[in-house]
Amino acid sequence: MRDDRLERLMGFGVTVRDHLMIAHSLRGDVFGPAQRLHGATYVVDATFRADELDEHGVVVDIGWAADELREIVGALSYRNLDDEPDLEGVNTTTERLCQIIGDRLAARVSGFGGSRLTGIAVTLHESHIAWASYEVSL
Amino acid sequence: MRDDRLERLMGFGVTVRDHLMIAHSLRGDVFGPAQRLHGATYVVDATFRADELDEHGVVVDIGWAADELREIVGALSYRNLDDEPDLEGVNTTTERLCQIIGDRLAARVSGFGGSRLTGIAVTLHESHIAWASYEVSL
Amino acid sequence: MRDDRLERLMGFGVTVRDHLMIAHSLRGDVFGPAQRLHGATYVVDATFRADELDEHGVVVDIGWAADELREIVGALSYRNLDDEPDLEGVNTTTERLCQIIGDRLAARVSGFGGSRLTGIAVTLHESHIAWASYEVSL
Amino acid sequence: MRDDRLERLMGFGVTVRDHLMIAHSLRGDVFGPAQRLHGATYVVDATFRADELDEHGVVVDIGWAADELREIVGALSYRNLDDEPDLEGVNTTTERLCQIIGDRLAARVSGFGGSRLTGIAVTLHESHIAWASYEVSL
Amino acid sequence: MRDDRLERLMGFGVTVRDHLMIAHSLRGDVFGPAQRLHGATYVVDATFRADELDEHGVVVDIGWAADELREIVGALSYRNLDDEPDLEGVNTTTERLCQIIGDRLAARVSGFGGSRLTGIAVTLHESHIAWASYEVSL
Amino acid sequence: MRDDRLERLMGFGVTVRDHLMIAHSLRGDVFGPAQRLHGATYVVDATFRADELDEHGVVVDIGWAADELREIVGALSYRNLDDEPDLEGVNTTTERLCQIIGDRLAARVSGFGGSRLTGIAVTLHESHIAWASYEVSL
Repeated sequence: MRDDRLERLMGFGVTVRDHLMIAHSLRGDVFGPAQRLHGATYVVDATFRADELDEHGVVVDIGWAADELREIVGALSYRNLDDEPDLEGVNTTTERLCQIIGDRLAARVSGFGGSRLTGIAVTLHESHIAWASYEVSL
Repeated sequence: MRDDRLERLMGFGVTVRDHLMIAHSLRGDVFGPAQRLHGATYVVDATFRADELDEHGVVVDIGWAADELREIVGALSYRNLDDEPDLEGVNTTTERLCQIIGDRLAARVSGFGGSRLTGIAVTLHESHIAWASYEVSL
Repeated sequence: MRDDRLERLMGFGVTVRDHLMIAHSLRGDVFGPAQRLHGATYVVDATFRADELDEHGVVVDIGWAADELREIVGALSYRNLDDEPDLEGVNTTTERLCQIIGDRLAARVSGFGGSRLTGIAVTLHESHIAWASYEVSL
Repeated sequence: MRDDRLERLMGFGVTVRDHLMIAHSLRGDVFGPAQRLHGATYVVDATFRADELDEHGVVVDIGWAADELREIVGALSYRNLDDEPDLEGVNTTTERLCQIIGDRLAARVSGFGGSRLTGIAVTLHESHIAWASYEVSL
Repeated sequence: MRDDRLERLMGFGVTVRDHLMIAHSLRGDVFGPAQRLHGATYVVDATFRADELDEHGVVVDIGWAADELREIVGALSYRNLDDEPDLEGVNTTTERLCQIIGDRLAARVSGFGGSRLTGIAVTLHESHIAWASYEVSL
Repeated sequence: MRDDRLERLMGFGVTVRDHLMIAHSLRGDVFGPAQRLHGATYVVDATFRADELDEHGVVVDIGWAADELREIVGALSYRNLDDEPDLEGVNTTTERLCQIIGDRLAARVSGFGGSRLTGIAVTLHESHIAWASYEVSL
């Protein structure tokens, strides 16, 4: 019965939720009416993964995790992403925003308990019927 | 024990959910960063009220209700509300959008079973931590 | 600023959630494909209202409330409502099922703290995008 | 068709969500195992009501509303309510905590746009299957 | 710190939600009262996975994904699954329905961007307290 | 296009939800105000995984799964975890409680269909904005 497959999934995760509200437009016929300038609330779930808990019994200080996510999300909030210099030429789809937020979190992790964390997952809910996610290993 | 108060609340409601995604900006210092062009997903709940059910045992044909809401919401979707001629001079706060959608539903109700309906309530969820609502009697 | 209107809404509510899974069909062209035998999970929220809390600081013993709801819901669960003698000739719409469950709860209340309760509300969620409710005063 | 009843419910609401995590015990046989020291996360929804929107198109500055709720909730958070001097002799049921938070919000409202607000409702979710609420007119 | 394990999970997902309402009965003593004809609403989440985004920055055209899911779900909706020729001899448990929907989605994917997709996951929520899922690689 | 990676994730899961309400305190400066005696409601999701369904078409008897989870959760409910002999010296963080519940479920699985199950995942939601999870292979 023992199976290599799931052993790889063993371990812990801790998730914090925040949100951002932005305007943007998407380029490409595939997007139909979403090619027009519109906007979205993204409810953001950021998960931090580790194989083992630290000496306090946590994956990561959840207060730190929430603050880091808040800072990354805050830098994107209440903006028209079409005008952000950082995102020039980027089609800011829900998937791509997951990746941007996930990679920014990953970059910060190296400065805080990063050596123990094994991965980060980010999910952006764009409505009650659609969401996207991105998972990166560390 | 019998109490006039709640008798007034007796009756039925049926609710359908839809959503819209828009860009807009809000005018007034009170809005802080939301004065910048940004956007939102609004998850919209529209409730139809009646004292009694009709001969089929419903408040209203739920298919009709969903279609009407879809049409009203669709006319606002994937747009920059700052540029909508209909909304010129309107501060499109969540509360105001509740009212606009609620009043548009109320206007349509008169053409469909309206004589039996007693009220309409509209709730717009702008995130997992904030929502607004508007209730209108018929 | 004081206003009669809301004074009538003052007071307390306590809500318990349960669910039932049934088969049924609906009679009437208005129901379209739901005229065929199909089924539903209804997530049921039952709210008990009172103007004042009792000597323990509650609207109603929440354990009792949950048990009463469980019993009423259990009597309908895992059944084809088209074949239930109790429901013969009843179009078992979501609205009507709210009323049936609400009235059965109201009947039981008289045997348990009923003299203090002022109303009961029942909401049945039939999916993530549709629900109905019924409110009865006591 | 026009009906006095629902006219009384006309108007607007805006809701903000927060949460608190506390320890407490409840006095009275009716509470069964909840007489032991245990605890709860309460997800708190505070609704502010008004008949009309202000000149900015809102019920209340949502930032102010969230801050006020945060302050009230923060004063109760991460505590054993059995040891709080303010709550001595109070059975801190979910219903009673709704009232305490609602009344504290109502007291603050008088200092901020209170003259326009008509009511406050507070809901505390104690789990995915139980919640309580309290509504107070202003 | 780098770890092979999670690298395998890297990548993107996009999910769309729909629902179906069916009647059925389950065969086997293990199902207790669910052996009787009853029914369910299943809220269906279908996730499409890819290692990389396409040239538009998406996993898959979300409109296409929603339409495909709608078509598969629609073919099962408002029916008594006990009478469906396609499902003859199949115990239509929540798990099995996940698999049926997941495999039907997988079959369609080959005709639409299939060469880039790496997996499909389907979750069916049968109530607020129970759900099942199925994951298939492509 | 075929990819070893996701093949490892193929298979089924079934999840049941329950909850527990506890008091506790956390040791370590990192926990800030949560070092004080406080409490939490944890909404618990327990997922059972299998590569194949059994002869009835299920991962596991969902009634058994719910009962086992109920028993494990019940043994922790309405208690001050700081005083539990079983948990002496344990920092009862959300992550650690996931592990404790997950390992207790895994121990019981061996007596019930365990030879087919491949893994167990447990998620504890401590609020609407934070949760933790633990996954163990069998």
